Amino acid sequence: MFNSVSVKNFNYLKVIVSLCICLTVFPHIIYGETKPRARDLGIPFEGSPGALNAITDVAGVEVGHTTLIAEKGSSETDRGPVRTGVTVVFPQGRESYNGVAAARFVLNGAGELTGSEFVDEFGVLFGPIAITNTLSVGVVRDAIIEWYRDHAPDPLLLLSRSLPTVGETWDGELNDIYGFHIKKTHVFSALDNAKTGPVAEGNVGGGTGMTAYQFKAGIGTSSRIVSTETGRFTVGVLVQANYGWRHQLIIAGVPVGKEITDLMPSEGAQKKHDGSIIIVIATDAPLLPFQLKRVAKRASMGLARNGSIANDTSGDIFIAFSTANSVSPDFSKPGISSFSFIPHEAIDPVFSATIEATEEAIINALIAAETMTGMNGMTFHAIPHDRLRAVLKK
Amino acid sequence: MFNSVSVKNFNYLKVIVSLCICLTVFPHIIYGETKPRARDLGIPFEGSPGALNAITDVAGVEVGHTTLIAEKGSSETDRGPVRTGVTVVFPQGRESYNGVAAARFVLNGAGELTGSEFVDEFGVLFGPIAITNTLSVGVVRDAIIEWYRDHAPDPLLLLSRSLPTVGETWDGELNDIYGFHIKKTHVFSALDNAKTGPVAEGNVGGGTGMTAYQFKAGIGTSSRIVSTETGRFTVGVLVQANYGWRHQLIIAGVPVGKEITDLMPSEGAQKKHDGSIIIVIATDAPLLPFQLKRVAKRASMGLARNGSIANDTSGDIFIAFSTANSVSPDFSKPGISSFSFIPHEAIDPVFSATIEATEEAIINALIAAETMTGMNGMTFHAIPHDRLRAVLKK
Amino acid sequence: MFNSVSVKNFNYLKVIVSLCICLTVFPHIIYGETKPRARDLGIPFEGSPGALNAITDVAGVEVGHTTLIAEKGSSETDRGPVRTGVTVVFPQGRESYNGVAAARFVLNGAGELTGSEFVDEFGVLFGPIAITNTLSVGVVRDAIIEWYRDHAPDPLLLLSRSLPTVGETWDGELNDIYGFHIKKTHVFSALDNAKTGPVAEGNVGGGTGMTAYQFKAGIGTSSRIVSTETGRFTVGVLVQANYGWRHQLIIAGVPVGKEITDLMPSEGAQKKHDGSIIIVIATDAPLLPFQLKRVAKRASMGLARNGSIANDTSGDIFIAFSTANSVSPDFSKPGISSFSFIPHEAIDPVFSATIEATEEAIINALIAAETMTGMNGMTFHAIPHDRLRAVLKK
Amino acid sequence: MFNSVSVKNFNYLKVIVSLCICLTVFPHIIYGETKPRARDLGIPFEGSPGALNAITDVAGVEVGHTTLIAEKGSSETDRGPVRTGVTVVFPQGRESYNGVAAARFVLNGAGELTGSEFVDEFGVLFGPIAITNTLSVGVVRDAIIEWYRDHAPDPLLLLSRSLPTVGETWDGELNDIYGFHIKKTHVFSALDNAKTGPVAEGNVGGGTGMTAYQFKAGIGTSSRIVSTETGRFTVGVLVQANYGWRHQLIIAGVPVGKEITDLMPSEGAQKKHDGSIIIVIATDAPLLPFQLKRVAKRASMGLARNGSIANDTSGDIFIAFSTANSVSPDFSKPGISSFSFIPHEAIDPVFSATIEATEEAIINALIAAETMTGMNGMTFHAIPHDRLRAVLKK
Repeated sequence: MFNSVSVKNFNYLKVIVSLCICLTVFPHIIYGETKPRARDLGIPFEGSPGALNAITDVAGVEVGHTTLIAEKGSSETDRGPVRTGVTVVFPQGRESYNGVAAARFVLNGAGELTGSEFVDEFGVLFGPIAITNTLSVGVVRDAIIEWYRDHAPDPLLLLSRSLPTVGETWDGELNDIYGFHIKKTHVFSALDNAKTGPVAEGNVGGGTGMTAYQFKAGIGTSSRIVSTETGRFTVGVLVQANYGWRHQLIIAGVPVGKEITDLMPSEGAQKKHDGSIIIVIATDAPLLPFQLKRVAKRASMGLARNGSIANDTSGDIFIAFSTANSVSPDFSKPGISSFSFIPHEAIDPVFSATIEATEEAIINALIAAETMTGMNGMTFHAIPHDRLRAVLKK
Repeated sequence: MFNSVSVKNFNYLKVIVSLCICLTVFPHIIYGETKPRARDLGIPFEGSPGALNAITDVAGVEVGHTTLIAEKGSSETDRGPVRTGVTVVFPQGRESYNGVAAARFVLNGAGELTGSEFVDEFGVLFGPIAITNTLSVGVVRDAIIEWYRDHAPDPLLLLSRSLPTVGETWDGELNDIYGFHIKKTHVFSALDNAKTGPVAEGNVGGGTGMTAYQFKAGIGTSSRIVSTETGRFTVGVLVQANYGWRHQLIIAGVPVGKEITDLMPSEGAQKKHDGSIIIVIATDAPLLPFQLKRVAKRASMGLARNGSIANDTSGDIFIAFSTANSVSPDFSKPGISSFSFIPHEAIDPVFSATIEATEEAIINALIAAETMTGMNGMTFHAIPHDRLRAVLKK
Repeated sequence: MFNSVSVKNFNYLKVIVSLCICLTVFPHIIYGETKPRARDLGIPFEGSPGALNAITDVAGVEVGHTTLIAEKGSSETDRGPVRTGVTVVFPQGRESYNGVAAARFVLNGAGELTGSEFVDEFGVLFGPIAITNTLSVGVVRDAIIEWYRDHAPDPLLLLSRSLPTVGETWDGELNDIYGFHIKKTHVFSALDNAKTGPVAEGNVGGGTGMTAYQFKAGIGTSSRIVSTETGRFTVGVLVQANYGWRHQLIIAGVPVGKEITDLMPSEGAQKKHDGSIIIVIATDAPLLPFQLKRVAKRASMGLARNGSIANDTSGDIFIAFSTANSVSPDFSKPGISSFSFIPHEAIDPVFSATIEATEEAIINALIAAETMTGMNGMTFHAIPHDRLRAVLKK
Repeated sequence: MFNSVSVKNFNYLKVIVSLCICLTVFPHIIYGETKPRARDLGIPFEGSPGALNAITDVAGVEVGHTTLIAEKGSSETDRGPVRTGVTVVFPQGRESYNGVAAARFVLNGAGELTGSEFVDEFGVLFGPIAITNTLSVGVVRDAIIEWYRDHAPDPLLLLSRSLPTVGETWDGELNDIYGFHIKKTHVFSALDNAKTGPVAEGNVGGGTGMTAYQFKAGIGTSSRIVSTETGRFTVGVLVQANYGWRHQLIIAGVPVGKEITDLMPSEGAQKKHDGSIIIVIATDAPLLPFQLKRVAKRASMGLARNGSIANDTSGDIFIAFSTANSVSPDFSKPGISSFSFIPHEAIDPVFSATIEATEEAIINALIAAETMTGMNGMTFHAIPHDRLRAVLKK
């Protein structure tokens, strides 16, 4: 459908795709000023966010989205509707082929994060983290390798130190997931357009067709600044949120899901697969790989504060990296390297920051998402901002 | 100090010890009816507790405490004061030498749980779980072996399948922990007195000198009944709570620690080691060892709901077992065995129950604990029930 | 190149591909009788193999290979040469959509095994294990999903319990790995042709372009029958061997690699990436998931006996399953299931069998492989059978 | 028996104990020159050992043994015979209270290594590693804490970063293990006498009553020097070997256990518990904690080369540390630290060295051990050096 092959009656589609790309690449221009985020609604969160309250507050981090939205019949395959995409996070920007100290934690493993074995074994993450829909992990992975082949100074070296890191959640309630609509070119686009600055949230990138607590959800982000005697550090979190049942939803300690019990997804949707969440934690605090595993574990605790129980069939997989500890892929050449780390007095603030930013990033995903109708006409509603405000005031 | 050697001027001590044992063994007689628990104060918790709202709601589970409270100078060693003890949990009662399917999860490993390797490797827990102070783990462990030697039908067989499971938290702020006051006889006493029925909470057993959120804490317990299409199951939790800072305390979603900022421990105490929590989860739901690991992980999420961040130097170690899957230590004899397990439809309710019972058990520990003065005259205060009620009402 | 698009001058290619498929599907007809295996050369191995001395001695196991061999210029892409393929192992045959108890162990994680998180979390493996070259993991994974979509009675159910399990090793020394020559149709072919009976070894399937100890290697298999008081069990192993340096090679305790020091790969090849090994262990012995992890660990010890040190950049990933413990993907429906397990008296024989069959399967891969020339004219030689025999006689 | 209480007729015992201590502390004086080690018998091993071919070739490492040998009736308890002890390994000498980067690996977990959780969580090992008999782990652990209390500059600080690391194997076939003969004073003695220089092997320290492959075994050690472009590093290994069946024994690739089938332990002994091995790996190569886990895993491969299958009830637990990465227990004070690490070109040599030194240390334990008679008159024979030489020559 999204092939380069030009077909006459695809103009409608092209407009939609262009609009999507436009919205994705320039969200701050189009609606950045006006679209409220969770704390704009007065929801209380602990801690101090960075300037953007986004993962990109960690210097060097770049995020790219490709958002695919098209109706059935708009392509030659007669499949659809399309409500999906891919999001990429580069720890040190898309032009860096160095690795960063990293670790992952699996709270519940009903999911996938390719490339994990390398991260576990070497304690280092090379290349971007990509997040997409469950069935497109393969094409996204192979596309990243092809992109390396065409861009990296020494692809073989890079691939002997890493394989692409690709996570997923299931958007098959809104998206024609079995249509395999994501193509390599969509991945290249997300990679090529990754950038610093504000991060679009909600129905964008990998989060396009995602839902949480039976509301529409998707991508969310947040950050925290921690000041310690050792120094000032930033922790940034980006989530692709696609999990949970309505009654579980807690916001700022308030059981919101028990207050707003209507606006449920249309018939049929609520009994499906209970979803997943991928959480990416970035920091400039110097941390060793095993310390980053400790940080990744804390994302569980932020998630818990929003009411999640890490449902049985949920893929709750978290990955944390430190931009302060970087290595060249050529770490086979003689010579001793080193990784630095903060003392224990500074670790607890980083733990707190991770929990707080995870909690807020999830709520940001909910607040930014907009009502969407997809497969079989199913609709997932946006959480109503005014009613949420009212519930919290009570 | 507590040796069997009789010494003349130990009468004072004897009275105290007798009183402790009395309180420990018959708590329901002495103060059971009148001492309120968390839900008696109107604190809202989700889910349905069992008859006792205790780990002993899981049929067969027995709990024993030895509580040691004595002042400095009351023994020949001239060490003290003593504010410590040991708590034991037998999955199938103290007369059973069979094992149960089990697994553990370490949220933060600044602690100890001996015997873990066997549990990890065989997926089975034999003997009791014991919890004591950090420095007495060795004596408790060796005492359990001695007790096996003197009681078990085939100690060698038992010890080729397991080693004692002993956890700890640090009571050195109130207790003369370097005095090594726990002796083998105290362990035997806890083992011999383990029983079903109500479980004493607060300043008892291993929890005697423990504190949490800078209030006095200790042992707490709770349970949940889950009804599924597959059957009705019980989940019971027992905690030895000894962690956290005041500002972190959340109860039922309310940041209580930011409301009650006085009643802090006396000078000096608040800067110490930030503690640990051991969480024991029992269930009669049939679960395989790796599924019990999943259950143990959920304890993290209950803990998170009370505001914990799993501080850097905290030993947050959880162990879960299923009494539905039992094996004889003689599992080397020919023949195929089997373990049963619930379907996925029933697992989420067990996960929720674990989170809810963990959350409540911790609050029960706080509510039951009483103000205590110990080492260097330091005092940790009980959380004031009336003020807590007032804060929650707001 | 292997597209369905018909192009005139592709006849040469077609002949090669047809021949490959023929060799792959009917190896026992074409060269089965005459091609010697390791024990035919008189190499001593411990234990008793099954009838086929192959993983397919475990009842129900089916293996399929697609072998791709073509020269540069034989396709429209002008890329090549092609020396690659894919091998699939179905635990219970390609028509079963049930899962089997399973676990994996990572000896060295410089590799990939997608789908691992599900196996870790649920202790169950659904669908085939596929093994291919490093850069084609994505397409193989997505192809398996597409095959599920078109064949499985309930693809959504299956995908809520599992994601495809795809491993890899690097064939880029002989194969134009960056050409991405494996297409979905090749994967479908391997899946559709999987069968019981003898298993082709050496330069076939995923092993087509693989090398070990700087000799040509690839796919190898072996099995053991263990007789215990509890019963008679079969352990089968299949490897894709692609690791190690010549001097490390030990066969039956003899340092063969120090005796046969010539027949090295042609200039340039020997300094590359030091490879990986995927080991699949099948058994009909009833084992719980965590016991299968113990079995998978023992593959390390068989590997060690052949001189491997699990080199730094090696992806040494092992997966074990038991066909005796099977579940329907519909394990969410109410009702209690069970998994059976052998007693301890029978586990050591299963451990020994795993070690022995791993050791022999690797040597079988070397013995079956034939000299191959590929990328940049590099040649990897088959280990010379006569000289090997002479070295072992010494 | 070994109490400080002086009793008249204990002179015989005193002589034995004095002799043991003498042999332990000054082995090189008494029999160091004349007692052959494995390579003195012409057994071929790969790689280059250090000056002492011992773990103490790693600068700073100190080893202490307490060996307890006494007959039944030689003490007031009327228990015995005593054939046990304790061995301690200080990574940086007994006067250092700093920690070293460390990690452990469990090949088979039917054993115990207390303190593991701290090592896993912080990646750092403080204090000594102690190895003793299975039932004395508790007293050894508590004794180390008491020794800290009396020697460490800040015991509380140390204990907030670590708990004692104590491993074990089972000597109950020769030793009256249920007699709990090890007392705190014996532990203090091993700690106080730890030193650099040659390490006594065989029937000493924790290895006193240990057996392997149904021969007498115990403590063994070995080392390797690796020269890389990055630098010259030492890897030292110390084992307490107590595992395996005769037919499994392989030495230098030769199935020795199938050649020497007599000299079996006397009636009854051969059917017991199949033992364990603790392996300590020291290196001065800079390695991060997770890299040390990789090193610890390689000990499995050295073990495999000697024929072990890691039997079902074996506690095969390995711990590795790097003296190049050291931290003060006061790592809570502000400021950034760092750990250094070697590049990949140097890691493979460290892996090989670990495998080789493990293989040799185990054989050294067998070669040094002397025939011993203990409990119920059971005798375990030393492996006969002349016959071993003859078998290897064949």
